[in-house]
Amino acid sequence: MEVGRKLWAIAEGYIPSGSCSTDRALISHETACILNAGDREAHVTITIYFVDREPAGPFRIVVPARRTCHLRFNDLKDPEPIPRDTDYSSVFEADVPIVVQHTRLDSRCAEISLLSTIAYAQG
Amino acid sequence: MEVGRKLWAIAEGYIPSGSCSTDRALISHETACILNAGDREAHVTITIYFVDREPAGPFRIVVPARRTCHLRFNDLKDPEPIPRDTDYSSVFEADVPIVVQHTRLDSRCAEISLLSTIAYAQG
Amino acid sequence: MEVGRKLWAIAEGYIPSGSCSTDRALISHETACILNAGDREAHVTITIYFVDREPAGPFRIVVPARRTCHLRFNDLKDPEPIPRDTDYSSVFEADVPIVVQHTRLDSRCAEISLLSTIAYAQG
Amino acid sequence: MEVGRKLWAIAEGYIPSGSCSTDRALISHETACILNAGDREAHVTITIYFVDREPAGPFRIVVPARRTCHLRFNDLKDPEPIPRDTDYSSVFEADVPIVVQHTRLDSRCAEISLLSTIAYAQG
Repeated sequence: MEVGRKLWAIAEGYIPSGSCSTDRALISHETACILNAGDREAHVTITIYFVDREPAGPFRIVVPARRTCHLRFNDLKDPEPIPRDTDYSSVFEADVPIVVQHTRLDSRCAEISLLSTIAYAQG
Repeated sequence: MEVGRKLWAIAEGYIPSGSCSTDRALISHETACILNAGDREAHVTITIYFVDREPAGPFRIVVPARRTCHLRFNDLKDPEPIPRDTDYSSVFEADVPIVVQHTRLDSRCAEISLLSTIAYAQG
Repeated sequence: MEVGRKLWAIAEGYIPSGSCSTDRALISHETACILNAGDREAHVTITIYFVDREPAGPFRIVVPARRTCHLRFNDLKDPEPIPRDTDYSSVFEADVPIVVQHTRLDSRCAEISLLSTIAYAQG
Repeated sequence: MEVGRKLWAIAEGYIPSGSCSTDRALISHETACILNAGDREAHVTITIYFVDREPAGPFRIVVPARRTCHLRFNDLKDPEPIPRDTDYSSVFEADVPIVVQHTRLDSRCAEISLLSTIAYAQG
């Protein structure tokens, strides 16, 4: 089934460096949840935009057919890691339709806090 | 009144296994709020996508005319339950226009945390 | 300036009866933030949908030209109040373009938790 | 790359005056995250709408080509500051396509709480 669009943008981006936990599930993180409900592999190219320098990337990931990928920005390493405590935005370009949702789990304080939104779709 | 679309997707999905409470209202849960504002019954088919296995479903629910259904993914059982602590995405197909919004109440820590977003609409 | 659409829907709706505070700002509440950026008064009709009964309404509000209205569902009284601890959805119909965003402040536990999303737009 | 739209609206707006911290990162704030992924500078005009007075603005900001700007409403000063503990809405007009996402960090209570949503896009 074809669901989604080929170009997505998330204007908010910020990975807090602090966490109240060392449990991977509860470490402060930002996620781009990417659904590829179609029958063809999705090749996704991610570009990261900053306040005061040229963009980073392209980061490349593959989401297999009929699979989801909850990508942590914290885990991006190639061509470079995403700095902590730093404002950024991200753009996703895919060769097949996908759906992208943005989530942050913030555990800087003793409790966790969550935000989530569908990303901006185009194309 | 006809409000909504016939195809919806939620890319984020994760039911925490832990909860600070045994009160049903405060147990960690994910919900798809489905509004059928029209005058015909809505037959909704849900498919769940995972990281590393084929999709689960179809799950089938009926939302009567002029009614809302706040469906907890935790409660889905047929053809199979949704595993806890596991990344997933979901797609909703209906035979009449509906509106879908995604919400998580997370009570892993002592306090609750909430996220919500309108789902991605198409069709 | 004309900004927005004339038909909006919020599929999620739930006013917790409990609150950690008696301060109006911190009492658990659900809000529909309605922006009328245009130069004509907006007449907005709200219908509330439930799980197991016919819809309530119409509730009628007026948003003056070039004004915002952060409407608390808690405050709706005519033709009937919104029950607490009860799942609902809402539909907004206006005679001029408006923008609607949904927010809940939940203070059932000792701390507050927030959710927000743009509503579904049509028309 | 051209990503986005030229007209955006955020119906929700509220800067709590209280904060549990004096750390800038944890002071209660509202942010409009603005992505300009294009190759031309974006000139953005912001208008703030209130409940009971004429709108404030225009506030003018520039987002350079291929940059993000996480604008805190708290920091707006010219032509006037945004009052605290006051309901407002905002409209963004740009001369090139941009993407706008709304986020609040609320630290009135001992812990932080977050909300975020893509803004309403048009034009």
